[in-house]
Amino acid sequence: MAEKPKKPQKLKARLPRGLEDRGPAAINATRAMVEKIRAVYELYGFEPVETPAMEYTDALGKFLPDQDRPNEGVFSFQDDDEQWISLRYDLTAPLARYVAENFDALPKPYRSYRFGYVFRNEKPGPGRFRQFMQFDADTVGSATPAADAEICMMAADTMEALGIPRGSYVVKVNNRKVLDGVLEAIGLGGEENAGRRLTVLRAIDKLDKFPADEVRKLLGPGRWDGGEEGKGDFTKGADLSPADADIVLAVTQQRDDWREAIAAAETYLAKSEVGQAGVSELEEIAKLVAASGYGADRIRIDPTVVRGLEYYTGPVYEVELLLDTKDEKGRPVRFGSVGGGGRYDGLVSRFRGEPVPATGFSIGVSRLQAALTMLGELDTRAEFGPVVVTVFDRDRVADYQKMVAQLRQAGIRAELYLGNPKNMGNQLKYADRRNSPCVIIQGSDEKARGEVQIKDLIEGAKAAAAIASNQEWRETRPAQFSCAEADLVARVREVLARHDVAWG
Amino acid sequence: MAEKPKKPQKLKARLPRGLEDRGPAAINATRAMVEKIRAVYELYGFEPVETPAMEYTDALGKFLPDQDRPNEGVFSFQDDDEQWISLRYDLTAPLARYVAENFDALPKPYRSYRFGYVFRNEKPGPGRFRQFMQFDADTVGSATPAADAEICMMAADTMEALGIPRGSYVVKVNNRKVLDGVLEAIGLGGEENAGRRLTVLRAIDKLDKFPADEVRKLLGPGRWDGGEEGKGDFTKGADLSPADADIVLAVTQQRDDWREAIAAAETYLAKSEVGQAGVSELEEIAKLVAASGYGADRIRIDPTVVRGLEYYTGPVYEVELLLDTKDEKGRPVRFGSVGGGGRYDGLVSRFRGEPVPATGFSIGVSRLQAALTMLGELDTRAEFGPVVVTVFDRDRVADYQKMVAQLRQAGIRAELYLGNPKNMGNQLKYADRRNSPCVIIQGSDEKARGEVQIKDLIEGAKAAAAIASNQEWRETRPAQFSCAEADLVARVREVLARHDVAWG
Repeated sequence: MAEKPKKPQKLKARLPRGLEDRGPAAINATRAMVEKIRAVYELYGFEPVETPAMEYTDALGKFLPDQDRPNEGVFSFQDDDEQWISLRYDLTAPLARYVAENFDALPKPYRSYRFGYVFRNEKPGPGRFRQFMQFDADTVGSATPAADAEICMMAADTMEALGIPRGSYVVKVNNRKVLDGVLEAIGLGGEENAGRRLTVLRAIDKLDKFPADEVRKLLGPGRWDGGEEGKGDFTKGADLSPADADIVLAVTQQRDDWREAIAAAETYLAKSEVGQAGVSELEEIAKLVAASGYGADRIRIDPTVVRGLEYYTGPVYEVELLLDTKDEKGRPVRFGSVGGGGRYDGLVSRFRGEPVPATGFSIGVSRLQAALTMLGELDTRAEFGPVVVTVFDRDRVADYQKMVAQLRQAGIRAELYLGNPKNMGNQLKYADRRNSPCVIIQGSDEKARGEVQIKDLIEGAKAAAAIASNQEWRETRPAQFSCAEADLVARVREVLARHDVAWG
Repeated sequence: MAEKPKKPQKLKARLPRGLEDRGPAAINATRAMVEKIRAVYELYGFEPVETPAMEYTDALGKFLPDQDRPNEGVFSFQDDDEQWISLRYDLTAPLARYVAENFDALPKPYRSYRFGYVFRNEKPGPGRFRQFMQFDADTVGSATPAADAEICMMAADTMEALGIPRGSYVVKVNNRKVLDGVLEAIGLGGEENAGRRLTVLRAIDKLDKFPADEVRKLLGPGRWDGGEEGKGDFTKGADLSPADADIVLAVTQQRDDWREAIAAAETYLAKSEVGQAGVSELEEIAKLVAASGYGADRIRIDPTVVRGLEYYTGPVYEVELLLDTKDEKGRPVRFGSVGGGGRYDGLVSRFRGEPVPATGFSIGVSRLQAALTMLGELDTRAEFGPVVVTVFDRDRVADYQKMVAQLRQAGIRAELYLGNPKNMGNQLKYADRRNSPCVIIQGSDEKARGEVQIKDLIEGAKAAAAIASNQEWRETRPAQFSCAEADLVARVREVLARHDVAWG
């Protein structure tokens, strides 16, 4: 069989998986969001700082002396001096490096914020990207729970600044020390119990999804997700005794009044020093936010918050959106977490060799933007495009260009049609596609009379809908009028004003 | 010899070479610049588009089928499907991929802008970073020189929007076809002359640094950079005959009147088709910008502009800053290029397999920012920090926190002192370091009277300079006053107004 002749090789234009291009609506929405968040953080006295997109891999906390390609979870490459460099996967690890490197020059406590893209070398999925934006704020050098309380209040204020009504979000606060106290109280301290501790924490993390009885199965022998034995997948449990499971559930039960949550934790964790410390920090945060007028509808003590299994050492917090839809029991449906954080006293210390307390909060900008779009809080209407000056006579491009310059000098978005000018229909189609409010036309007749034609495309579209025949259209030419060349700017301004064009 | 006991290993906090952290002054200056550039580009009808920081390596134009680690100039890594991915090294190649991928959905001509960081895996040096910001604008799908003229005018307007006075910048325009015509006229066409062509272009590129006689040496046998034979380094020349060197210098000579430059090129390139095409495009650009009122002080035909040896196929342009200092001959000293671009008709075609004309312009934001800082056009004064509410009595943190909340609710930047509160001196030092306009103090005496103390730090610093002794200081306590708790916000506002604090 003869081979087919090869076509000339053409490069395929495509993006790697998990990456996305962004158009005007998404870009403008992000800018608006970022500006609102920034304003709140500035009000709280935080100052901006920016680190580059890449760091030494070891500074990010990935220690990979033996591996040839340390690409697990991060994008990495070897510098020409053989050192491994990685793209940042969050904004916290680079901040810890920055603070450690500039420790003496910074005011302490050091409050700062930053936003930017982070990169994850993970399997992408729907809504799950390998590059996405975070907006972080951190207070380094303060051990007081007042620093954590401040960040929770700032998170609540930020949600409202973004247009999320009170009642549609909640900042949930817990303390890792309380969870550590629970684990201690049920005898799961020590190296040998690391695995079971993890299983218990995972079970607690399910308390906002499952009823307590289902979580009790996960704390005990295990759970069939089909609802009864042998049905569906089996998740092995933590094998706690019923009495120990009771303790876990008693402390982590959600209560409307934070005083009751605190009291329960105090009772059950009476013998755990770390547990008591956690309870007292939670109590201090609760009192501080209450004193500043933040009710439980905005910031709530919630002992089920686990917040991953990362580097947190004390208070942890999570912002949850509660959208306005109800489930079958009439409870608001969770959109889920759009941000969170906590205290990470160990992260700067890695570099300093001395304790450096720190607490911080991260907003998933891309995820929150999706939520705000759903809530209708982001303006996604198509913006008006520029006024298009058409090219009627290609020898007179310089004249048309001059009109464009006049409009721009008057602050009016305008452009010359730069495509092939032979067909006026194509020029009008282009202007439609750009969502232009009006086009300018000057043929030789108009030129001779010292006039220009202005065609109001918005009015024209309305008129077109009302006109029955092509003939009627040609005879009436709705929404098109002539004016003197000298009046061009003024008459275009009238058209823009008629249609409330923002930049008119 | 006994080994020393090892110290506990501490991670070193450091950035890879050629990367930098950025503080509030630099970040705010960049934001202000970007907003000004954006406003001009929007006025010109360009719309934003954003691509991710990484692309398939082949899409960027680096074809590396045989190399194991294609890290020459770009940062690259292999995806889990073995395909090579690279960080973008400019914003043009990703745009070409974007346009090719979305060709049918985009209006054409397609005017767009974007800014962001680009990455170069090169040897860093002073002022030469491996991550820096570019701001690009491109028109794709228009072959007319009017598109190039528009971008030149936009570049000129942008410089003035950034505060660079007329006369301190110039947009220089040339055409690669004119240079191709010159090379053709002196018989340097064809594959076999590629090396000598490069040498000639490099020599032309020197015309804005060296007198014509020195460039003549580079066009001829070569040049000793010590000024005479045997002195300094020798640069081998292009070995042109004196007559051919004359042609090169005649065409590329700078002339004040663009008509003369065009006439010279027309004369010498009469027999070169490509040369004539270049001359006629240059002439059209010159006429268009003149018709729109842009004089040669803003946009100038300059036949010496070579603009690298990349992918340009027609008009090329470069923005040069002319700072207000003079050299020994009284000529303005060049700061050099802060942006440039040109027509690249081949870049989108790589993907499409059909001709797609395109022209674009890139501003080196980081470099321009350095220039604007020198020109004093960027506000680098320290911004005022927040009002600091001090902690006098650590049991009353909730009261202090409430004051902070009141100030913030009134739109006043404020924060609670979150460090160790035992020493009031440290709290005042912290407030000084943050450049706070005032601090709030409430001890138990004031609390009993329902009052707070406000200490005006700016006034206080002035007063301190005028006070002779510690005793006088203690007795007068300048710039410190009491007010009723209820008047806190109003009295702080007075202090802020007195010192013109922007957010007061």
